[in-house]
Parts: sequence; C-alpha cells; structure tokens
Amino acid sequence: MSPTTMAVVAERYLRLALEEDITSEDASTESVMHEARAAQVDLIAKGGGVICGLDVFERTFQLIDPTARLERLVAEGDEVRSGQLVGRMCADARALLSGERVALNYLQRMSGIATCTRRMAAELRGTGATLVDTRKTTPCMRVFEKEAVRVGGGTNHRYNLSDGILLKDNHIDAAGGIGAAVAAARAHAPFVRKVEVEVETLDQVREAVEADADIIMLDNMTPPLMREAVRLIDGRAQIEASGNVGLANVREAAEAGVDFVSCGALTHSAPILDLSMKHLRLLDAGGLS
Amino acid sequence: MSPTTMAVVAERYLRLALEEDITSEDASTESVMHEARAAQVDLIAKGGGVICGLDVFERTFQLIDPTARLERLVAEGDEVRSGQLVGRMCADARALLSGERVALNYLQRMSGIATCTRRMAAELRGTGATLVDTRKTTPCMRVFEKEAVRVGGGTNHRYNLSDGILLKDNHIDAAGGIGAAVAAARAHAPFVRKVEVEVETLDQVREAVEADADIIMLDNMTPPLMREAVRLIDGRAQIEASGNVGLANVREAAEAGVDFVSCGALTHSAPILDLSMKHLRLLDAGGLS
Amino acid sequence: MSPTTMAVVAERYLRLALEEDITSEDASTESVMHEARAAQVDLIAKGGGVICGLDVFERTFQLIDPTARLERLVAEGDEVRSGQLVGRMCADARALLSGERVALNYLQRMSGIATCTRRMAAELRGTGATLVDTRKTTPCMRVFEKEAVRVGGGTNHRYNLSDGILLKDNHIDAAGGIGAAVAAARAHAPFVRKVEVEVETLDQVREAVEADADIIMLDNMTPPLMREAVRLIDGRAQIEASGNVGLANVREAAEAGVDFVSCGALTHSAPILDLSMKHLRLLDAGGLS
Amino acid sequence: MSPTTMAVVAERYLRLALEEDITSEDASTESVMHEARAAQVDLIAKGGGVICGLDVFERTFQLIDPTARLERLVAEGDEVRSGQLVGRMCADARALLSGERVALNYLQRMSGIATCTRRMAAELRGTGATLVDTRKTTPCMRVFEKEAVRVGGGTNHRYNLSDGILLKDNHIDAAGGIGAAVAAARAHAPFVRKVEVEVETLDQVREAVEADADIIMLDNMTPPLMREAVRLIDGRAQIEASGNVGLANVREAAEAGVDFVSCGALTHSAPILDLSMKHLRLLDAGGLS
Amino acid sequence: MSPTTMAVVAERYLRLALEEDITSEDASTESVMHEARAAQVDLIAKGGGVICGLDVFERTFQLIDPTARLERLVAEGDEVRSGQLVGRMCADARALLSGERVALNYLQRMSGIATCTRRMAAELRGTGATLVDTRKTTPCMRVFEKEAVRVGGGTNHRYNLSDGILLKDNHIDAAGGIGAAVAAARAHAPFVRKVEVEVETLDQVREAVEADADIIMLDNMTPPLMREAVRLIDGRAQIEASGNVGLANVREAAEAGVDFVSCGALTHSAPILDLSMKHLRLLDAGGLS
Amino acid sequence: MSPTTMAVVAERYLRLALEEDITSEDASTESVMHEARAAQVDLIAKGGGVICGLDVFERTFQLIDPTARLERLVAEGDEVRSGQLVGRMCADARALLSGERVALNYLQRMSGIATCTRRMAAELRGTGATLVDTRKTTPCMRVFEKEAVRVGGGTNHRYNLSDGILLKDNHIDAAGGIGAAVAAARAHAPFVRKVEVEVETLDQVREAVEADADIIMLDNMTPPLMREAVRLIDGRAQIEASGNVGLANVREAAEAGVDFVSCGALTHSAPILDLSMKHLRLLDAGGLS
Repeated sequence: MSPTTMAVVAERYLRLALEEDITSEDASTESVMHEARAAQVDLIAKGGGVICGLDVFERTFQLIDPTARLERLVAEGDEVRSGQLVGRMCADARALLSGERVALNYLQRMSGIATCTRRMAAELRGTGATLVDTRKTTPCMRVFEKEAVRVGGGTNHRYNLSDGILLKDNHIDAAGGIGAAVAAARAHAPFVRKVEVEVETLDQVREAVEADADIIMLDNMTPPLMREAVRLIDGRAQIEASGNVGLANVREAAEAGVDFVSCGALTHSAPILDLSMKHLRLLDAGGLS
Repeated sequence: MSPTTMAVVAERYLRLALEEDITSEDASTESVMHEARAAQVDLIAKGGGVICGLDVFERTFQLIDPTARLERLVAEGDEVRSGQLVGRMCADARALLSGERVALNYLQRMSGIATCTRRMAAELRGTGATLVDTRKTTPCMRVFEKEAVRVGGGTNHRYNLSDGILLKDNHIDAAGGIGAAVAAARAHAPFVRKVEVEVETLDQVREAVEADADIIMLDNMTPPLMREAVRLIDGRAQIEASGNVGLANVREAAEAGVDFVSCGALTHSAPILDLSMKHLRLLDAGGLS
Repeated sequence: MSPTTMAVVAERYLRLALEEDITSEDASTESVMHEARAAQVDLIAKGGGVICGLDVFERTFQLIDPTARLERLVAEGDEVRSGQLVGRMCADARALLSGERVALNYLQRMSGIATCTRRMAAELRGTGATLVDTRKTTPCMRVFEKEAVRVGGGTNHRYNLSDGILLKDNHIDAAGGIGAAVAAARAHAPFVRKVEVEVETLDQVREAVEADADIIMLDNMTPPLMREAVRLIDGRAQIEASGNVGLANVREAAEAGVDFVSCGALTHSAPILDLSMKHLRLLDAGGLS
Repeated sequence: MSPTTMAVVAERYLRLALEEDITSEDASTESVMHEARAAQVDLIAKGGGVICGLDVFERTFQLIDPTARLERLVAEGDEVRSGQLVGRMCADARALLSGERVALNYLQRMSGIATCTRRMAAELRGTGATLVDTRKTTPCMRVFEKEAVRVGGGTNHRYNLSDGILLKDNHIDAAGGIGAAVAAARAHAPFVRKVEVEVETLDQVREAVEADADIIMLDNMTPPLMREAVRLIDGRAQIEASGNVGLANVREAAEAGVDFVSCGALTHSAPILDLSMKHLRLLDAGGLS
Repeated sequence: MSPTTMAVVAERYLRLALEEDITSEDASTESVMHEARAAQVDLIAKGGGVICGLDVFERTFQLIDPTARLERLVAEGDEVRSGQLVGRMCADARALLSGERVALNYLQRMSGIATCTRRMAAELRGTGATLVDTRKTTPCMRVFEKEAVRVGGGTNHRYNLSDGILLKDNHIDAAGGIGAAVAAARAHAPFVRKVEVEVETLDQVREAVEADADIIMLDNMTPPLMREAVRLIDGRAQIEASGNVGLANVREAAEAGVDFVSCGALTHSAPILDLSMKHLRLLDAGGLS
Repeated sequence: MSPTTMAVVAERYLRLALEEDITSEDASTESVMHEARAAQVDLIAKGGGVICGLDVFERTFQLIDPTARLERLVAEGDEVRSGQLVGRMCADARALLSGERVALNYLQRMSGIATCTRRMAAELRGTGATLVDTRKTTPCMRVFEKEAVRVGGGTNHRYNLSDGILLKDNHIDAAGGIGAAVAAARAHAPFVRKVEVEVETLDQVREAVEADADIIMLDNMTPPLMREAVRLIDGRAQIEASGNVGLANVREAAEAGVDFVSCGALTHSAPILDLSMKHLRLLDAGGLS
C-alpha cells in the first residue's frame, strides 16, 4: 500500500478497528504485563494462499507502538503454503498481544480475497478478458478489499458512486431512455468519467452503441446472447459481463469475447486465509512479566 | 437493533460507509434526477436464508432522507426463500438509488452470518452446548456481525479485549503459570469480568481448575481429550471448545460435554445472502425524471 | 445540491465551519436574547451576479435550529442585481444571528464563483469548447466550489487525485515515456477512468496519440501551436487547453479547436458576490428580547 | 505558525484537505511509482508578492511522509518576484506528487492574502490607523487566513463569535437600546472581552460613549461623518471604521482619525499568489520509476 | 443553554459521553426490554442545592430517542431541597434506562458547581467584587462547568488560551519585563482582547499600571497588600484577586477593594449535588417488558 | 497507563482537551515567544497526597512537542507532601506554557481521586472487603478516573453499560421478577459477563440466590440488614454493598461481611490535589524570548 493511501485513507480505519477492539484497556494483557519488554512473534500461515496486507498488518501495531517492525520473509502477493513462516513481528510485547487480533483480521481477509481473485483470474488466462471487482465490498473495508483484488491479479472497477458513471434501469427510466441518460451524464458529470450503461437485451445493446456509451455492461446474459452482443457492439465500446459469475462459469463468460468480467463474490464471499501469531519471545534478558 | 445501540454505536459506522461510497456526489443519479420524487422499491431475496439487518438497512436510507421507511413483509430473523419479497422501501427516489449499495452490503452480510449461524446452531440441537462467536470479525463490522450471530441463534462471546478476560499461553508465560495469571487478572481487572483460561493439555486443565478459573477454553483438543477434560473439570468451571470448528465437526465437539463451542467462521467466512432492490416506481404522478 | 451530497458530504463541512466560528458561545447574542423568538430576516444582494448556494445557506441555519426555512424569491443560478431581495430566512432569532456569518461566507463565495464562471462561459459561446475547472480549489471547499462552477455554466474536471488520471511530466519521466505511462495507468487504475496526458510539444502530442490517451492536455501552448496540435490529434482524443487562462484569452484558446478549456482562477481567485442579511423582525407578538 | 497552533488547530484541517483530494489513492502516481525514492523539487514563485504559509506547506507533505523537509530560501513574510526560487522540498517522490496540490492550495491562498494585506497596510503608513481583518473568511480556513493577515502586516479583529463582543443593530434592538445592550454584555460575557458597538449615526455615537463601550464601530460612514464621530468620542473609546473599504479609500478612512480600519476583502476576495513546484529530481542513484 | 451552544458546542461532548458508557450495547436493558414502550420517570433531588443542566440532561436522552421530553417542575437555577421532585422525563423506557447515568453525571456535576458558586457569591454580597471562575476545569467539561458558574451567580473569566491574554511571570521574563510584554501582546493579539498581567509585588503593580494593562491580577497577595495595590492602581485598571480563595477568605479578599475574585475550586473541587431517577412507569397499557 | 490504553483510548481525549483550551492560538505565549527554545520547568506538589497521571501529564505536552519528556522524581502512586518536587518537564518553552493548564487539570484530578481512594481503602484494611468504584464518573473522564481508582488502591467495577450486567428494579419489573431477569440476561448477554442483581430486601436476597446471580448488590441496607443478607447468601454469590458510602461509614459496611463496597464519591466528589508548574528556565544559551 502506498504511503499516500496508508496515511490519508487507510490509517483512519485502522484506528477505528483498534478502538472497536479496545474500548478501555486490554484487560488480559494489562493484568500480567506491567512493563515495556521488546519481543518478537512469528506470523505463520495456517492454510495455503496469497499473502496480502502486510503493510496494513505492520501499521496496526505501529499505531500502538511506533517502533514496531515486521521482518518479512515473503513479499506482498506471494503464495504461501500451510505452515510457512511469513514473517516476524517485533514490538513491545504488550503491543503485540493487544494488536494481534485486529492486525490478523485485516491480513486474513485481504489474503482471502487475494487468494480467491488469483484463482479466478487464472481461469481467464488466454482469453482477452480481465477480471474486475464491484462495489459489493464490506462496509468500511473497500480500500483494503480493492487493494487485495489488485494484489490477487484482478483490476478494479469504479471505487464508488462518485468516481464512475453506471447507468442502470432506474437511471435510464428516469432520463427517458438510454440515449437521453448517456447525454445527461455527459452534460452533468466530470468529463473524465467514462459512461457505462447496463443492458439486458440486444435492443438495449443497440441503443447503447448508438448513444456512444464508453462501456456497455451485459447484465445476466447467457453466453450465446453475450456473443451476439459482442458482435453487435463490434469494438465501438468496452464490454463488461456481469451477474452471478463464479469459478464455474467465469471462463465461459470471458470466451464470449467481452473485455471485462466482474465478480462480486471476490469481495463479499471469499473465505479468509487462516494466519496466526505464534511463539512470542522476549528479546531482552529475563523471563516474561 | 435497539435504539440505544443504533444511535450510540451503529450509526457512526453507517455514516462512514456512506462516506466511503459517496465522496463527492452520486454522479449517475445526479445526472438524471434533479428533483425530489417519492418512490418505492422492492427488496427481494435472491437466495434462501435468514434475514438479518432490517433496521440497519432502513437507517442507512434515513441518513440521506429522514423520511425513508421500510414496509416489512418478513420480520428480523425470519427465513426467506429465493425470490421472496422481503419488504418495500419508500423514500426520495434519489436516496433509494444512492443508498442502495451500502444498505445491501450491510443486509447481505448480516443475513449471511445469521444464515450460517442458524445452520450450525441446528447441529447442536439436543446437546447441552451453546454456539458462540469470536473476535474474528471484520474490522468496523463487529456490532453488526455479533448481532447477526444472535439473530441466527448463537450467543456472543466477549465483545472485545476490554470486556472479557481470556488468558492465553503468552499471558500465562508472562505471569509465570496459570495460577499466577488468574490471580493477576482477579487483582487487576474489574471484578465483574469472568476469568477464562486457554488450555491445551490435561495438566493445564487441572491447573486451571485449581486456579478457580471461571471458564476453561479447550483449544484444539480432540473429542476424546475434550471428554477427559470435561470429566476432570466436573462442573467446577464453564467449558468452551475452540479451534477449527465447522459444520462437519461441531456436533462432535458439543457431544464431548462442553458448555460452549466457539466458531470464528461464523463471522470471518460466511458467504453473503444475496438480496436485491428491484422495480423502483414513483409514488407521485408523472413519470420518472 | 442533491440530498445525497448534502447529507453525506457537505454537512460535515458546515458543522466544522460553525464550530470554527462558535467555540464556546455566541457571546453577543447570548447577552441580549434569552428566549426562543421566531423571527425573519431579509437576504439582499449588494452586488450583481449569479446566486449559488441557497441550499447550503439554508442548511447552515438548520444545523442550529432544525425548523429554519428559507423562503426563496430567486432560484439557484438566477442572476440578481444589487439591492434585490433574494429571500427571507425564518428561524429562532438567535439562530439567525449566530449562523449569519457562516451561512453568508458560503453563499457569497459560491455566488462569486458562479458569477465568474458564467462570465467566462459566455466568452465560449459559439465555439465548440466547454469551460472546466481544476483542483486549484480552496481546501475543504471543493464540493461547494465545484458545484458553483456547474451552476455558473461550467463543467467539472476530475474531482480529486483518486477519480481521474492525469499524467504530468514527472509521471511520464518515472514511467520512462508517454507510452509507458499510459500503459501503466491502464494496467493499474480502475478501467472506468479516462487517461489524460499533459503535453508541451507537438512531439509529445504525437506520442500521446500513439499511446491512445483518452484526453490530451495542451499545457501553456500558444494558440497557433494549439491549432497545430488539434490538427495532429484529428479527433483521436479529447483535447483540453490549460494554463493561465483568463477572460481576456479564453475565447482565443477555444477557437483553436480544443474541446475543453480549464481555468484555475474560477475557484482560486474569483471575488465574492456581496450579500447581506438585513431587517430582522420578530414573527410573534412583543418586541425583541 | 507556532507549534501549538499547528498541532492543536491547523493539522486537523490539513488532514481534511488531504482527505478531500485523496479518497482512495493517487491513481496517477501509484500507476507509475511503486517504490520509495528520495526526491527533491523546486518551489518557484510565478508572480510577485509576499510568501506566507511555508510551515503549512511543509507540514502537508509531512502528513504523508514524516521525513519531508522544506529547505527555505526565503523567510515567511518575505517579498518574492516572479520566477524566484522560494525553496526546495525533499521527500519520497510519491509524497511530493500526492501532496503538491493541497500544499500549494494553502500556500497560494495564504500568500495572496498576505500580499493583498501588505499593499493595503502600506496605504495606512503615517496615519495612526491599524488595518484589521473581519470574520468574512473562507469556511475552514480562518486560522490560515488570519495568520496571513498578520504576516502581511495587518492585525486581527476577533477570531470568532465566542471571543469578542460586537453588538449590532439587532442585538441593540433586542436589548432595548445601546445602553441596555452594553450593560447586558458586561453582565453576561467574560469580563476579559472588550465590548464593541456598531453605530450608524452621531446620535448612536453619543449613546455608545455614554454606555461606556470599549470600541465603537462606525459603519459605512462618510469621511466627514467619521471625523465628526471621532471628535465626539474624543478618546473615550477605541474607534473602528468599517464598510466597503478598499485600496482606493482606505487611506481616506484612516485619515478621519480612527484607530482601526477593517477590511473584509483581505480574506474574501484576495486573488492567490501563483506558485508552482517544478523540476522533480531523484536524490538516490538511478532514474525515476 | 442556548440552542447555538447546544448544537454547535455541547452536543458533540454528549455524544462522546454516551459512547464512553455504551461501547456495544446496554446489556442489562437489552436483556429484558425488546420493544419500544413509552415511559416516564421521576427526577428527584437527594440533596439541597441549585439545579443546573436541565437542557443538557434532556438532550442526552434525545440523542437516543428524539421524542424524549423533560417536564420541568423547577427552573434552571432554582434552589431545591432534598427529596423534591425536579421533573418527569418521558421517553422510550429503554432510552430512559440507557441514558440515565450519563444524563445524571452531567446534571449532578453542573448542579454541584452552581450550588458551590451560589454559596460563594453570597459571601460577596455588598462588596463591589464579582466572583469569577478559572481555566481549572475538568477536561472536556468546560462549556458545562462555565455555564454552571453563570447559573450559580458567578461571572466567567476567559474561556481558554485563545480568547484572553494573561501574561504571567514566564511571559514577562520572555518579553523582558511587564512593559515589553504588554506591548508585545497589543502588537500581536486581536485588539478586542483585554490585556491582563499577573503581579506579585507592589513594584510590579506600578509597572503594570505604567504599561497600561487593562486588568491587573494580584496573585496570592495578603489582604493588606491587596489594599495597598488597589490604592496604587487607583482606578486605572480592573483588578482581580487570585490564589487559594475559598469560602473562608473570599469576603476578605473582596473587601480589599478588588473588582473580581477568581476561584478555581468552583470547578475543580465542588462536590456534586445528588440527584436520582426513580419510579419508572409505562405510559401505555400493559406491564413492562 | 499502558501504551495500548494511551494510544487507542486516552490520546483522543487529550487532543479534545487541548482543542477545548486552544481554539485558535495561545495568544499570550505567541505574543512574547516567536522561536523554539528548549526549556525546563518544575512540577511541584502544593498539597499532600497520591500522585497519579504522570503518563497523561507527559503525553499532553508531547501532543504539542513530540520531544517533550518528563524527568520523574516520584513514581506513579507515590505519596508526596506539600512543596515536594515531583519532576521536571522539558520541552520547547512554548509547549510548556501552552500545555500547562490541560496537563495539570488531568494530573490534579487523577491525583485527587487516587488520594481519596487510598484514604478510603485504608479504612477497609483487615476486613475482607475490597473498595470499588462506580459509573458516577465525570463525562469523558472515565478512563482516567478509573485508572486513578486503581492507582489509589481500589478495584474497578464494570467500565460501562456494555461490559457488565447490573439488573436494577426497573429491569426486574420489566422481566417480571428477579428469576426471569437473571434468566433473560443469561440468554441474551455474552456469557463472559457476570450477572449482578440489585436488591433492597431480604426477600429479594433470597430470590437472587435462587436465581443463581453471580453478584448480589445490597442497596442502601443498614449494617444489621447487610449482616443478615450475608448470612442468607452464605457464599453462593459475591456481595457488594452500595449506597451513600463515605469515609465515616465504609468500615462498618465492610464489617458486615460483604466482598465489595462501592463508592461513587471517589470519582464524583473528590477534591483535586493541588500541583503547579514553576521556575521555567531555558536550557540553551541566552535569555528568554
């Protein structure tokens, strides 16, 4: 994660997540540790997959102990196998214990999404299509989940309602048709936005092409219908396939000739990658306490 | 969700989630709708499961349009089948379009967790064990995810590091043993906290009983070992089974005689329940726009 | 301003502005007014120009007194002449006095920008070019200043660094050339972003066209050079003219055949439109106090 | 700017301004720069005027990269000419690119106000009058704009509604007269506040003197009327001249013998001083990338 | 409390206080009350004193249940005796239970300060001196504690470091003497600030008078020394007595002829006035639950 | 205070307290000190008692000047006598002056509570009872006040409504009796919460024992009644005595055989311990200024 995104966007959420987990004190740790003790703990994969979120993991501890540092044994985006040592986290022992759960909750979720994305992106190899995500992200997690999609090998769709135009049925009805909707968007919105239109029929495809939409989203079409739509569009717009895409059918959608296949499940239903912190040891002399 | 939790805890997150999705404007909606128009839209299940999060769903729209109201056709916690009409949401058409994704992101995730919880809780029927959650929740989602566990039929474990004592290996090492750790916790922490100790062996079970721990967590024990532990404890502490619990093995764990079985997957890996907003129509005269 | 933008984006700034102006109490008003008294005050233009920001003006008072209402005698975007009655604001007299300065500071600035934009947009009439703004806005004022540009008749450029790609000399150097920079942007950024490249020479124009940039920004070119660039591009990209554009030269730039002319002065140097609140009178019986 | 004001008051706004400009990532910079690279860039004046806001400029970059440092070639408050090198900013190249616009937006605006203030203050040289600002500042910019007035050579009027008493016509009506209003303010407000009264006629001047106001503001009076008011007051209160003061008439107001001349245009209508960041170069070996 | 202070300043703290007391749910109330039930509860004094904070008390409940209303049987500032019914609070029963402690914590503390202030102010009756508070307030409580001082019959000193000048020994040393310090303050600070100087000796009193300080604070002087200082000052500055003032010696200080006597104990050491909420009853049919 | 509590919980309040005291600038200090000067100042006790809050005191200055350091001559929890040198604070002189009042306001209040707690805890020596606090804390001060109780030798009761169950008369009425209320709490709330019931009569004591409450609070009982209750409970629950406990009667309550005696006055009515910062001197060459 770039220093800009971390400092300006992500850190605010990390603080909120720590505040969610610690509302007065870490009662367990404070009971038994009363002094600062430099310590180290192992970060270990308990399943196989793609590691994603190491910067976020490290920064979470730094918000408690600014001297915290992660010694990395694998790089962001690397595949790990179950049991593999991913890194060693060094900090005040109390920070390690107090920050563990929040740091892992981010790392596990980001790694789960990156893992899922990589598997689905592999299905598209050789087709001309690119895998993209959606806005079906977990609330307050978008900046992390969209980064995980990129690390996993996908590409991002619009980040939010403000930075992309997607005209759906209701927008089109409101404007009085696809042509009018596209024209309204071009008149109102920043000209750097591409205009995307969602269509369900070949008639709508034709209207969208005539309206000069930049991107046409084929919503829930069958592969044969998609192929027909691709033929109709004939390079005059970028094409996105959308709707109930999963591992089982993503390649079929791609092979219909679309440019992008979007998949909400990457962010809304990917299981986590299990990771764990083990073997805390003190770096200074003397036992714990 | 009670009015207290909604007003004091949850609403803050809903605002953040809206701010994440709308950083300047809803460019699509503002392109085509320039006036307030009362409208209604259907909330429809696209999969079968347990509905959870209706208050959160409704409040999300109210933060944009205070007059927004959800007409409910099913109650919180009801099972729905794919295709079922769940309710009708009424508000300014622009609020309906702008709030849709955030509101659904909450509702789908909460319903997914409730659905997953209900299935796993059903496995425990007839055993004396209760299903509980963990702190393996999505950052900034805990208040919603823990509510979904309750609605699904589970019970909550501690909410966070501040409101429950759980002494793990590192705490025990730091204190110099289970007995010392429990004593330190009783001396330091609010006396209304129960003290829970995590153990991995029968020797540790004995130590925990002698230390008069309130709850003993059996971490990653086999069912036979758990049965032995239950026998040893003999009612002198509450017992929690923990570690890699899933649909396949939750009943076996419960039948070992423990009081609680905790399961992280309820919150970290439940797939969403698919829901969708369809058929927006204006309630006042005239067409859209 | 749409209810979505107001509730999710703008209101937060209005609160901050009120908190900037009132850090403990409104010492003058609290000295002399101890009771709620419904009152009305006139909003009067003290200069001629375009009114912009009426929703923002009204909402500022509502944050103190939720019953506050603006009776509008002119519509958003209307031209007013000096001395004209713009509207009547009704609220608790204390809210009228306490909110006056903040509400006017927004209204005056937004109206000043809308006025300046309308004048410059008029210069473009009959050319095919559209007037656009920049990111040279006042910190914490962008949502208001970009709205004022639209109300004045301009169109918005990208809102911020996150929602548009603009590759400048440093980005191009970092990537190793225009072609590489455009390719890197297409690989990294959400595909709904158009890619814009800033060029200073005709050679760079050719490179940008070959790189298939969506938008080419001609930076500080003379009109003859711009005409040459337009000829070279020949419809293969949108063209923006940029750099030291003012009332005196905006038309000349437009007549070079570009699609967009951007002007930072709209937001960074427009003088305010002077407006004032006068003639406070109580709506209930009895005198003030 | 003092460390106290920076840490406790200003930094919060700088963060908001960065968050306004970067809501997910700096898409252009992240496309082409994937590693930390120490770099330096020149800060150059593109117009002549007074430099103001160097601390604010530097701190903006530090919020992204804490090691960022500005090498200053001119001091706060110095006059610069167009083309002059003002300083060199050193930081991670990505921080330089991502923070540039926000940092310049502050620096340009503060310098514009300081420049405008210095010109107007020069007009007062030799009169006994002091130039003061008003509360007609840009929302969320007051701490910066009032500092710029001081750097330019002006003096600050009250900061906000809480820390100064200014009784205007509506307050006086509410209290039942100038005497009653002043008495109410003395009874209610902290005794360290001076009490200022706004007057429009000589009769009101007399009342204000009798009421023992600390400061009397002559609102929109002609120079002859002001001279008469000054004579009447005869040293028994400080005197402020207010209303439509500009470069053309500020000296005439001052020569009427008042102590202070206030001018809203300093903060609401000063054009910016144009400044620019140029010539980014890497400080470590190797080319950009 | 005026609507301006409540909305712009105080409400933010009330929310924080509720968030401090409710970090996930009100576990007791949510266990037993699952539905909205209109209810009423009595607010009863359990000690004698001055009631202060009724608006704050009411607003706390409104932040949970916007329909909450306090029926007042005594007015702000009234004296009550132990056992007296102060009012009846009506709201959803859950809001009454969840908000009770926070609302009482404010009301008890504000009433305690008002009670203490009224007793000390009574000691000054007949002397020309006014009782004032200090900045020795509880963090995050100043707006409430300073209001309580006013309701109790005291007057406020400066609100904070930004809105009053008080030059102490360190400031005077830094400037190089009292005369230089006063001059520096007049040059730097808003001219609406009075300049106060702290002195400990008669020599310093003379210097302060010569420097034309607006207010001279006699710090920890004996009554005879104070009388001498008052004689020396002879009406040329306002005079404040400060330092270890309590009920026992406040009158003696006042009788030395000073204008103001300041007392930190009003806000830092006043015991609360005990108040309690009793006799909750439902307003709709049916029993509780 | 542990680094976790400081970073995640307390620092937010320290910032708010600084923002309460400095809303634009420290006008006195900025008038006379324009440059950074390393300085040192003594922290001196002006009364006898228990020092508490040294970390909070130091961190307050660090939020203005990150290099600020407190040289400690006494440890947290030590008793000091009037006049004793507690430590030396080193920082930029401006930070020392600007942060002084806020830092002392925390330190004085925390030390006052620790002092009061130690005195009351001494009364319990030799009884088996433990002194505990309540939720009658000052709003926004709970994390500091509860820490002060611990440092003074008391133990904390629940932190807030979310992390402990206390069923009072209204909860019991709502549930339909003590047994039903306890059962409802066990069914709803996290199982790590102990369930406490408030009782006023011996009949209620019996019901609470039968309901298997974890803790029984004897509310406002006379010592003889408490003794009878203790006999009835006979070790089957922990027992807390509550209600109007003070120095005069706390031992009598303890001697009735209860486990805990709770006392609201510790936090709501303890007078501060007077402390002061004196003898600022510069550490670098040259005089102040």
